[in-house]
Amino acid sequence: MGKTLAYKILENHLLAGELVPGTEITIKMDQTLTQDSTGTMVYLQLEAMDVDKVKTELSVAYIDHNTLQTGFENADDHAFIKSVAKRHGVLFSKPGNGICHQLHLENYGIPGKTLLGSDSHTPTGGGLGMIAIGAGGLDVAVAMAKGTYSLTVPKVINVQLNGKLKPWSSAKDVILKVLQELTVKGGVGKIVEYTGEGVKSLSVTDRATITNMGAELGATTSIFPSDENTKKYLESQGRGEDFVALAADPDAVYDETLVIDLDQLVPMAAKPHSPDNVDTVANIGEIKIDQVAIGSCTNSSYADLMKVAAILKGKKVHPDVSLVISPGSSRILKKLAENGALADMIGAGARIIENACGPCIGMGQSPKSGAVSLRTFNRNFKGRSGTLDAQVYLVSPETAAISAIRGVLTDGSTCGEAMPTIEDADFPKNDNFIIYPEGCSVDNTPVEMGPNIKPFPRNEHLTDTVEAEVCLHAGDNITTDDIMPSDSRLLPYRSNVPYLSNFCFEKIDAGFAERCKNAGACAIVGGENYGQGSSREHAALAPLYLGVKFVLAKSFARIHRSNLINSGILPLVFENPADYDDFAIGHKLVIENAIAQLDGEAITVKNLTNGKEYKARGNFSDLEKKMILAGGKINLIKGE
Amino acid sequence: MGKTLAYKILENHLLAGELVPGTEITIKMDQTLTQDSTGTMVYLQLEAMDVDKVKTELSVAYIDHNTLQTGFENADDHAFIKSVAKRHGVLFSKPGNGICHQLHLENYGIPGKTLLGSDSHTPTGGGLGMIAIGAGGLDVAVAMAKGTYSLTVPKVINVQLNGKLKPWSSAKDVILKVLQELTVKGGVGKIVEYTGEGVKSLSVTDRATITNMGAELGATTSIFPSDENTKKYLESQGRGEDFVALAADPDAVYDETLVIDLDQLVPMAAKPHSPDNVDTVANIGEIKIDQVAIGSCTNSSYADLMKVAAILKGKKVHPDVSLVISPGSSRILKKLAENGALADMIGAGARIIENACGPCIGMGQSPKSGAVSLRTFNRNFKGRSGTLDAQVYLVSPETAAISAIRGVLTDGSTCGEAMPTIEDADFPKNDNFIIYPEGCSVDNTPVEMGPNIKPFPRNEHLTDTVEAEVCLHAGDNITTDDIMPSDSRLLPYRSNVPYLSNFCFEKIDAGFAERCKNAGACAIVGGENYGQGSSREHAALAPLYLGVKFVLAKSFARIHRSNLINSGILPLVFENPADYDDFAIGHKLVIENAIAQLDGEAITVKNLTNGKEYKARGNFSDLEKKMILAGGKINLIKGE
Repeated sequence: MGKTLAYKILENHLLAGELVPGTEITIKMDQTLTQDSTGTMVYLQLEAMDVDKVKTELSVAYIDHNTLQTGFENADDHAFIKSVAKRHGVLFSKPGNGICHQLHLENYGIPGKTLLGSDSHTPTGGGLGMIAIGAGGLDVAVAMAKGTYSLTVPKVINVQLNGKLKPWSSAKDVILKVLQELTVKGGVGKIVEYTGEGVKSLSVTDRATITNMGAELGATTSIFPSDENTKKYLESQGRGEDFVALAADPDAVYDETLVIDLDQLVPMAAKPHSPDNVDTVANIGEIKIDQVAIGSCTNSSYADLMKVAAILKGKKVHPDVSLVISPGSSRILKKLAENGALADMIGAGARIIENACGPCIGMGQSPKSGAVSLRTFNRNFKGRSGTLDAQVYLVSPETAAISAIRGVLTDGSTCGEAMPTIEDADFPKNDNFIIYPEGCSVDNTPVEMGPNIKPFPRNEHLTDTVEAEVCLHAGDNITTDDIMPSDSRLLPYRSNVPYLSNFCFEKIDAGFAERCKNAGACAIVGGENYGQGSSREHAALAPLYLGVKFVLAKSFARIHRSNLINSGILPLVFENPADYDDFAIGHKLVIENAIAQLDGEAITVKNLTNGKEYKARGNFSDLEKKMILAGGKINLIKGE
Repeated sequence: MGKTLAYKILENHLLAGELVPGTEITIKMDQTLTQDSTGTMVYLQLEAMDVDKVKTELSVAYIDHNTLQTGFENADDHAFIKSVAKRHGVLFSKPGNGICHQLHLENYGIPGKTLLGSDSHTPTGGGLGMIAIGAGGLDVAVAMAKGTYSLTVPKVINVQLNGKLKPWSSAKDVILKVLQELTVKGGVGKIVEYTGEGVKSLSVTDRATITNMGAELGATTSIFPSDENTKKYLESQGRGEDFVALAADPDAVYDETLVIDLDQLVPMAAKPHSPDNVDTVANIGEIKIDQVAIGSCTNSSYADLMKVAAILKGKKVHPDVSLVISPGSSRILKKLAENGALADMIGAGARIIENACGPCIGMGQSPKSGAVSLRTFNRNFKGRSGTLDAQVYLVSPETAAISAIRGVLTDGSTCGEAMPTIEDADFPKNDNFIIYPEGCSVDNTPVEMGPNIKPFPRNEHLTDTVEAEVCLHAGDNITTDDIMPSDSRLLPYRSNVPYLSNFCFEKIDAGFAERCKNAGACAIVGGENYGQGSSREHAALAPLYLGVKFVLAKSFARIHRSNLINSGILPLVFENPADYDDFAIGHKLVIENAIAQLDGEAITVKNLTNGKEYKARGNFSDLEKKMILAGGKINLIKGE
C-alpha cells in the first residue's frame, strides 16, 4: 500500500508510537519558530526548563506581531526575546525583517523537515513540502528543550488539483474553495495533502498561501509535494542545496479525497464573519468598499505584490478607498524598491506600512465604523479588524487591487483587463536583520526583563475532588480571539497574564473575569469547535489564572485542546451533546474521584444545582493524563 | 528705515491695526492647513460657524497624525474631516500622502503668502519665505470662515548666518545652536528672521528644518528670504511659476541680532528632556544607543533621507539598535523607491514605516524601558516617545544614521568617512492622494460623523463674580503634552473631549480631573512659560470641560494663551511672580467685579483661604476682552 507524503515524513521522524490515526506519537522536531506575541511566554517557559542550548537543528525567534510599539511593552518584549534567544542558540529576526512564515519559507524551510511554530499559520511551510505544525507556546518550548513533539496521528485528506488557474483566479481562490467545501471544522484531526497535475502550475508561494490558510480548516497541517517548482524557489533564495524531491507514492491511500478543477475556479471571497462563508465575487456583487488591505502571511509574497503593483500601475486608488499594503519581508520590500513596483504602488495612492502582520491581527489600520474592508488575509472573525461593526471580506491580491481602483468589489476577469504576467526574481542573501547567537551562552548573556513581563501562571496537581462553578455558557465555534481578545490594546500585554486575564471573554461576556474571581474555582461550558483560530496559549493561561478547572464542550479545536491540557485544565467532551442545554451560569459542578476517573472511559460530572449527573469524555492519551495529574506540562517536565 | 521681510509680508496683508510690536493687528490669511489630531475640532468648529465655502485662497486638510488606526476612531475622524472638507471647498490629503508640513512645502507653499495651521510646526513654510503661523484650531477655523487672523505684533530677531556648513554638520545643528543660545522661551513674542550670506548655502528644505523647529523657541514664526534656491526648489516640484524673490531691506532694523558662523558648527544634540538642552555630540560622548528614529516634519526631506541612505549603503545597522525611518511624503518615498536609496536603507536593516508623524508624536515606535533613543525630531519632552523613562536625544539625520551603524552616539566628522554629496531631483506632480472638493457643497455632501466624535465644549458668558478652587499648582515650562497628554492611547480620542478630559494633567497629577469635577469651578496656578509646545487646543478644551475658569501663571506660551482666551478661560500673569508660592491646591479664590476689572490695568484675585489679595495682569487686547466676555471665540462670532 502506497504511502502519503505526510506519513512518509512523519515516519522518518518517528520516535515513539505508531502511525495509526487517533493514537499518540512522538516525533523528532527539526525546527521551531516563534513570533513575539506568543513568544514571550514560550521563552519564559524555556527559561523555566533550565536547558542550555536548544536541541533542534534550527530555531528562530521572529518579531512580527507587536511592531507598532505604542508603549514600552513591545520593545521590552523584543529585548527579552532577543536576550533569551541568544542564551539558548536561537536565531533572532529583528522587527522590520518581516512576517515569520514568509521569512521562514525564504530562509530556512527545507522539504521533508519538521517544523513546530507557536503560531497557527505555521503550516505555511507545507508549501515547501515540510510537516509544519502550529502549536501552543509550551509545546514549542518543549520542542526546543527536547527536540521532540507529541501529537495524535491525523488522518490524511487528499485534495486533488486538476487543470490550471485562469487569469484573475489565484491560490487564494483555491483555499477559499476548499474552505467552502470542508468548512472551518473540516480539517480537524487531519492533514490536507495536495496532489494532482494542477500542483505543477502552482509556485511555492502559491502553495504556501494554500497551506497557510489550511489553518482555517482546523487541520493539523497541509502539505504539497516538493518538485521542480520547489527547486526553482529554493534556488531563487540562494538555497538550491536545500532541495529534496518529495511526493506521495502514486498508489497512496487517503482517508478522504476532494477534487478541485482549477480551471473552473473564479474569484471568490469569504464573507463576514467566517473564512468558510465563501461565495464567488460575481455572486456577492459590486458592493461599495471603504478599505483594501493587502499583505499578511497568507498573501504577501513577491509574486502577490508584483501582481498588485502591475494592476495599480498608472491607475489611481478610488477616492473613497484607503488602500494599505504591508509586504511580507525585507527582501521582498527591497526587491519591490529596486524594480519600480513599489513606486508604482505609491504612485497610485497606496499606503505602505511596515513588513509585519499588522492589520491582519488587528494591529493597526482598523477601518471606519461599519466599513466594508477587503483583505487578502486569513481570518475575518467579527471585530478582529479592531472595528466591531466592520464587514471584512477575504479575497485574493488580484481581487483586492482591482477593487481598490474601482471602489467596489470587483471580479477582475470581467473587467476586460489582461492579468499581467510576473517574472521570477532572484533574492540575494541579506541577513542584516538577523542576530546570530554565536559566542553567547546562559553564562555570559543575561535575561533582559522589562517591568511588564510577569511570570506565567502554573497549575497545581490534580485534586481528587474538583469543584467548580459554571462561569460561562458559550455557543459554537468560540475562537481563541473570543476567549482571549487580541487587539492593539491588549497585544502589548501578552507577557502579563495577570493583567490580560481581566479581559478574558470580554467581547462575549464582560462579567466573566469578575465572576471567576468571585467563584474561586470555575468551569466553562462550550459548544462545538471550542477554541478554533489562533494558537495562542493565552486562551488557556488566562483561564488558568482565573481559576478555570475544566471546560465542558461539544467538541474542541486541536491546538486549544492541547493548550488546555498543557495548563492542567481538563477539556471534556459531552457524551450527549444535548446535555449542553442543561447547564447555566452559576451552576455548581463537581468531579469526584477525579484521579481514578481519568483512567475510565468517561468522566462523571455532577451538577449540584440541578442534581443531575453527566458523562463526558477526555479521550486523553497517556502523556496527556500525566500532564493533567501533574497540573500541566511544565510541572511534568520539571518533575514537580 | 529699511524693513524686515516679516514686516513687509505682514504689511501686505494688514487689514486692521498698525505694525507696532505688542499691539494687535488683523491680517488677511491666504492659506490654512490642518492635521487630523487637531483637525476634527477645527472642522466641528467650522461647521458650527454656518459658513459655506472657505474664504482663503487655499485650505488643505491633511491626515498625518492618527495613522496607526488601532481602533475605528481614527478612520472615523478621517472620514469626518474628508466629508467636511468637501462641503466647504477644502482639499483633503489622504493618509499615506505624508506629513502636512512637508507636503505643504512641496505642493502649496508660496513665498510672501500667509499660512495659518492648526499645528505648532506650521512655521516650516517660513523656509519658503512665507509668514506661516501655528495656532489653535479655533483660530484656523475662523481663518477659513473669514479669511483673517488677529495677532499681537511680534518683535523681529535677526539670526545672521555667516559662512557655510562643513560636512556632517547640517541645518538641524543650526537650529539646535539657536535653541542653545535663545532657549525655549527666547522666541516668545518674536519672529526669527534669517539673513546673511550663509543663507545661500542652505536649500529650502534645510531652511524648513530651521523654521520648523523655531517652534521650540516659542517664536511666532521664523522666516528665510526667497531667492535662487527657493526658485530651484519650486521648479523641482513643478511649480516654478509660484516663485517670487523676497528679502529684507539691506538696512532693515531688527530688535535683536544673533550671529552664527556656520563653519564653526559641529554636530549637536538636544539632551533629555528639552530641545534647548543642547551640547555638542563630541562633548556628550559615545553613549550606547538602543533606537534611532529618522523622519518627522523636521527632518524627512528628500535630501535628508538621501544622506541617510548614502551613509547606510552597504553597511549593517548595529545589532542592538532598532533603526526606523518614516519618509516625509509619498513623493519622497516614491523617489527613494525609484533611485535605489530605499533599497539601500532596507538592505542595511532599517525598518520602513508609513509616511506620517509616527514616532515623533509618540504614535508608535516607543523604545524599550530606559532606552537611549536618537531622533531627528523636534521635541524630546519626557514621556513623549511613549516610554516614560526613555532618554531621547534630538540630532541631525547624518548623526542619526552614522550612530545607527556604530551603536553609539557618533560625531560623523570624526569617523574619517566622507559625507556623500546628494544630487537634486525633480518630483513629477502626483495628486493621487488628494481629494478635490469640486462639485461638492454643504447641500449635496453630508457630514460623516462616527460615534466617537462628540461636540466641542462651549463656555458661558463671563460672570461678574468668578469663584474657583485651585486644583493644580504646577511648575515652570508646563507643556501642552503635560496638560493634555497625547500618546497613542489618547490620540484616537481627540474628537471626544469629555473622554479625553479624564486624562488632563494625568502625568503630573493623576487626581486633577477628579478634583476639578468635585470642585465644580476651578483654577490652575502655573510657573513660567505655561503651555509651551504643541498647538493643541485640547489643552484648553479639556480644562474648559472640567470647569477651569482661569489660569494664574508667571508667564504663558503664545499659542496656548490664545487657546485659553478662545475658550473663554482667563490667562492671568502674576504681577509679582513670588506670589506663586502663596498658593496651594484647595485654596478658594474669587475675582469680584470681573467684568469691570477686565478694563483695568491689573485684576485682583482674592485668596479666601489665606485671606490675601493678589494682582495679576491679563494684557488683553480689545478683541480678547470681547472673547472673554462672550465666553469664547465661537460665542463671539455667533453673537451668542
